[in-house]
Amino acid sequence: MVYRVGLIGLGTVGSGAVKTLIQNADQVSRRAGADVVLQGVADLDLESDRGVDLSSVPLKTNNGWDLIQSDDIDCVVELIGGETIAKDFVKGALEHGKDVVTANKALLASHGAELFQLADRHGRKIHFEGAVGGGIPIIQSLYGGLASSKIREIHAIINGTSNYILTKMDEDDRPFQTVLKEAQELGYAELDPTYDVEGIDAAHKLALLASICFGTRVDLKQVYTRGISDITIEDIHFGARLGYRLKLLAIAKDLNGEIEVRVHPTFVPARQILASVRGVFNAVSMYAEGLGSTMLYGRGAGDLPTGAAVVSDIIQCAQDKTSRRAIDYSNFYTPVKAVRPMSEVETEYYLRFLVQDNPGVLSKIAGILGGRNISILSVLQTEPSQNNQCPVVIMTHEAKEGNLMQALEEIHALDVVLAETKVIRIEKMDTARA
Amino acid sequence: MVYRVGLIGLGTVGSGAVKTLIQNADQVSRRAGADVVLQGVADLDLESDRGVDLSSVPLKTNNGWDLIQSDDIDCVVELIGGETIAKDFVKGALEHGKDVVTANKALLASHGAELFQLADRHGRKIHFEGAVGGGIPIIQSLYGGLASSKIREIHAIINGTSNYILTKMDEDDRPFQTVLKEAQELGYAELDPTYDVEGIDAAHKLALLASICFGTRVDLKQVYTRGISDITIEDIHFGARLGYRLKLLAIAKDLNGEIEVRVHPTFVPARQILASVRGVFNAVSMYAEGLGSTMLYGRGAGDLPTGAAVVSDIIQCAQDKTSRRAIDYSNFYTPVKAVRPMSEVETEYYLRFLVQDNPGVLSKIAGILGGRNISILSVLQTEPSQNNQCPVVIMTHEAKEGNLMQALEEIHALDVVLAETKVIRIEKMDTARA
Repeated sequence: MVYRVGLIGLGTVGSGAVKTLIQNADQVSRRAGADVVLQGVADLDLESDRGVDLSSVPLKTNNGWDLIQSDDIDCVVELIGGETIAKDFVKGALEHGKDVVTANKALLASHGAELFQLADRHGRKIHFEGAVGGGIPIIQSLYGGLASSKIREIHAIINGTSNYILTKMDEDDRPFQTVLKEAQELGYAELDPTYDVEGIDAAHKLALLASICFGTRVDLKQVYTRGISDITIEDIHFGARLGYRLKLLAIAKDLNGEIEVRVHPTFVPARQILASVRGVFNAVSMYAEGLGSTMLYGRGAGDLPTGAAVVSDIIQCAQDKTSRRAIDYSNFYTPVKAVRPMSEVETEYYLRFLVQDNPGVLSKIAGILGGRNISILSVLQTEPSQNNQCPVVIMTHEAKEGNLMQALEEIHALDVVLAETKVIRIEKMDTARA
Repeated sequence: MVYRVGLIGLGTVGSGAVKTLIQNADQVSRRAGADVVLQGVADLDLESDRGVDLSSVPLKTNNGWDLIQSDDIDCVVELIGGETIAKDFVKGALEHGKDVVTANKALLASHGAELFQLADRHGRKIHFEGAVGGGIPIIQSLYGGLASSKIREIHAIINGTSNYILTKMDEDDRPFQTVLKEAQELGYAELDPTYDVEGIDAAHKLALLASICFGTRVDLKQVYTRGISDITIEDIHFGARLGYRLKLLAIAKDLNGEIEVRVHPTFVPARQILASVRGVFNAVSMYAEGLGSTMLYGRGAGDLPTGAAVVSDIIQCAQDKTSRRAIDYSNFYTPVKAVRPMSEVETEYYLRFLVQDNPGVLSKIAGILGGRNISILSVLQTEPSQNNQCPVVIMTHEAKEGNLMQALEEIHALDVVLAETKVIRIEKMDTARA
């Protein structure tokens, strides 16, 4: 079976979605239970190079309606943004019996009521995983793994631009305007940054989240919204002295029949895991009775993270059509990848030796490590204790486990080494990398 | 339509699942698209008080087979644990055409191949959200919002007991054995803690995660597994001096055709968000090209978090039957809850006043705040600058926004107050609370 996608809008997110569709085609189709095909693309500009090859796409047009009205399209992906033409496209697609995928939070926050009602009437779905926290699987989690829980509180960092600015102000000790300018140069902030820095973008997303979690309609205009443009370094520093970090927080609470929805600069206790969300990263923390606290963290925006969310939505749409759920277990009984033997694994190491404190010990150990291609990153030597024994801690650069084990065997044969060496591996994974 | 659940095993997780089913019945049925009914329970002990009222459950039995063979049951929930009887029950349920929900990671890590193949043969599903990180919606996210992404790396803290012990050793400067004993007294560790502290439980979960993410079968015995029982305070301290925190990390990497799977004590850079995961909390950090890094965080175990995961799985099973997806949009066009006016919202406040530095100023301000029922938590007063002007920072206890605004109006009328006061709200939400 084939599932045919028509994508309107080849901007940043649109290009990211096309890239994801192409690069992960095998996985996308396997999980969709159908061959997912990019049947059509629509954009006013079909000429610019967007780093994707559209030559095999059957239907290329400047007019989104060509896709909406085509009988060869099962699902319309709206990625042009805005609330006027985008709204017409979404309505048109639903009326033509197509499922819709969109990442347009402004559209849904302002016109969600009308659009979702229309979708229900036509027995179609609107998926919008990309609308809140691009790389964070929050929407489907609320309807999936968290479906049984009644979320009572949301505390979210859902605007990457403002979180980047606050992080930089804090870390580099520079004022708002300077950091904003830099963010604009880096492409992290728009030329007109109002939506991001004044909390409006976050308010859009909070209205969507609160509506889903609390089972009630929350309109954008009901969200109390303040931004970060009047935040000073001084306030960030005073807060830090008192144990807090400043975040633009989107907060929603379900208080027995009444709800709270607000976006404003907020001091968060530094110990809170939410306080550790830095730079352009986003996080949504939720609290439900029974479940307790749970948090989803990831990149909030960007072509590929949001593109991936859009394609995950396409998979859900395809499953609706094929009545096939995403779970494919064949992994579990098809071993296709070999497991690398531990001796070939490379990591950095923490080594704690117990040695006789005399000159030359460190050089002997370093020599043996060097002979096995293990180079030293740093050494921590402490005062000798009774009996002239002394722990020496060595951190290594990346080395092969097999080489390390051989080196340790040699080292343990030295007279001056008094005990088994403590080996702890180090993982340098960067959860904040691109 | 009615969807009938038979639950085998009324232990910790079983009772938690029953509580969730009862307490959140409305939401569960709405999202399932069917009336979800607890049709039967089976346990050797039906007499003990488990804090749940089973009087309305039609079928109560000491024999799990009574549920499996019943025509009145659509879905069998296996929560007895272990790999012998539990395996027979799961196989039997599938063979009798029933979907299965389980939280049994040991069973799936060791016998997943056989069981999933059986499920496929019978056109049935096994859902297991509760098997990895009880309160973390990781499994459904992998098949849902993350479905389009090819996960390349997993770094996970997926054993709450060992993370609790390492956190306490670090924070309280106490040795492993002492903290383990305390954890046992608190019920965070089993009397025989081997599975948790030796990394076996984490290895089970990692085998499941790696199989799903990398599209290959990973057997438990392929996972390199080391525990934390030989970790000393000394090593934790040396690591801290070098900028690391010690975690029992479950690591899996997809390296172009070859994979790495290992569980061992690991130093993590303290700046990493994973290093901030404390106590019994779990987190799964994943990296995929395009998507970048994403992390899911929450309670790893416990009756209600795992029970909620089990019930979310039941919702998915019911949807399979009803061909109805979890997304219900009616929220968006049914406003049922009022939004609390901002003046009624209560938070703590950070207030920065700019005042003329002379005696009595602070007492005047404090007096006005007190008159509006706003009590002071702490005061930060700094050196006066030129012109004898001086910022005063006051942190308040919880107060009503309306009261604060009135107080500020009064305060601004004082001659000694020289500028608009900076107001930043504080959220004390505890993402680590139960």
